[in-house]
Amino acid sequence: MAAVTAPKQDRSRATRQRLLEAAVACLAEYGWAGSTVSVVAERAGVSRGAAQHHFPTREDLFTAAVEYVAEERSQALKSVAARDRREVVAAVVDLYTGPLFRAALHLWVAASNEDQLRARVTELEARVGRESHRIAVGLLGADESVPGVRETVQGLLDMARGLGLATLLTDDSARRARVVAQWATLVDEALG
Amino acid sequence: MAAVTAPKQDRSRATRQRLLEAAVACLAEYGWAGSTVSVVAERAGVSRGAAQHHFPTREDLFTAAVEYVAEERSQALKSVAARDRREVVAAVVDLYTGPLFRAALHLWVAASNEDQLRARVTELEARVGRESHRIAVGLLGADESVPGVRETVQGLLDMARGLGLATLLTDDSARRARVVAQWATLVDEALG
Repeated sequence: MAAVTAPKQDRSRATRQRLLEAAVACLAEYGWAGSTVSVVAERAGVSRGAAQHHFPTREDLFTAAVEYVAEERSQALKSVAARDRREVVAAVVDLYTGPLFRAALHLWVAASNEDQLRARVTELEARVGRESHRIAVGLLGADESVPGVRETVQGLLDMARGLGLATLLTDDSARRARVVAQWATLVDEALG
Repeated sequence: MAAVTAPKQDRSRATRQRLLEAAVACLAEYGWAGSTVSVVAERAGVSRGAAQHHFPTREDLFTAAVEYVAEERSQALKSVAARDRREVVAAVVDLYTGPLFRAALHLWVAASNEDQLRARVTELEARVGRESHRIAVGLLGADESVPGVRETVQGLLDMARGLGLATLLTDDSARRARVVAQWATLVDEALG
């Protein structure tokens, strides 16, 4: 029977993953108001019942989705083969552009006005923020025992988030590349 | 008749201003979905008809509101009596926290999914961004003919925007103060 059970589990895991990826895509594309469980299920090619089996509530689905994709991205960032700090800064900023950041932004803004979402998204955001900081410190070879180093790295992540916000309405990539190049120099000098 | 007309104009201007301030407050508090013209008119103590006389469409009302408050804030920033660059950096960051930034953020996110809003908000955001940049350059005494200076100031404004986003869900003021202090030092050194 094991031969029957294993593919079943695989199918279940694959369905879950399709739902999570569809949820992030819907959030980035339609925003919170337009992203219902039905819309996501249809995009994932899954029945609404199957979607609710995996994620009983809309909040479950979307917080799990943003967390899943954030973890995928953290893994990708950890394995960045950057030759120097300038490349690390560019890779960190890249985390805050694209569909994941866009989806997370819609979730944050919705959570700011919806009590049911707020506590979960706040907790998720704190966790993802700490993880991004930890990875950035490692990749930059930053020594946080030196005064100011921790705040230098935090400010860099805040700048990356602000750059992500600037790309929400327009393609800002040319300006962004110039700002990133200059701030990479400032960060490199500050970290010694 | 001039004595009759002038108070009438004053009243009309006062009504308009009340509507704009109520619109920003509603946007910050309820988000785009919860901010209808009726909700704003009620908060301003104005009839729905009077509101529509001033602003024929919802898009008119909210883009005008964010622009109006952004201009008020620019005026306030210009008159900042900062003793040094550290205080200027803190004042610039303050522009991106509080109800105006929160309202603008809701408008940006709504505009990213609503075609009617998108073009207007993109244009507004570009105008407000240029103005903030120009004021920051002046207050910081930054010489933009020196390579890298322009991008240093832009990155500072991006960082301020990212710090504003971090305050959306939680009170982030203690961390923000430490990051601002450190980056004020780095920016001061970079601007020479």
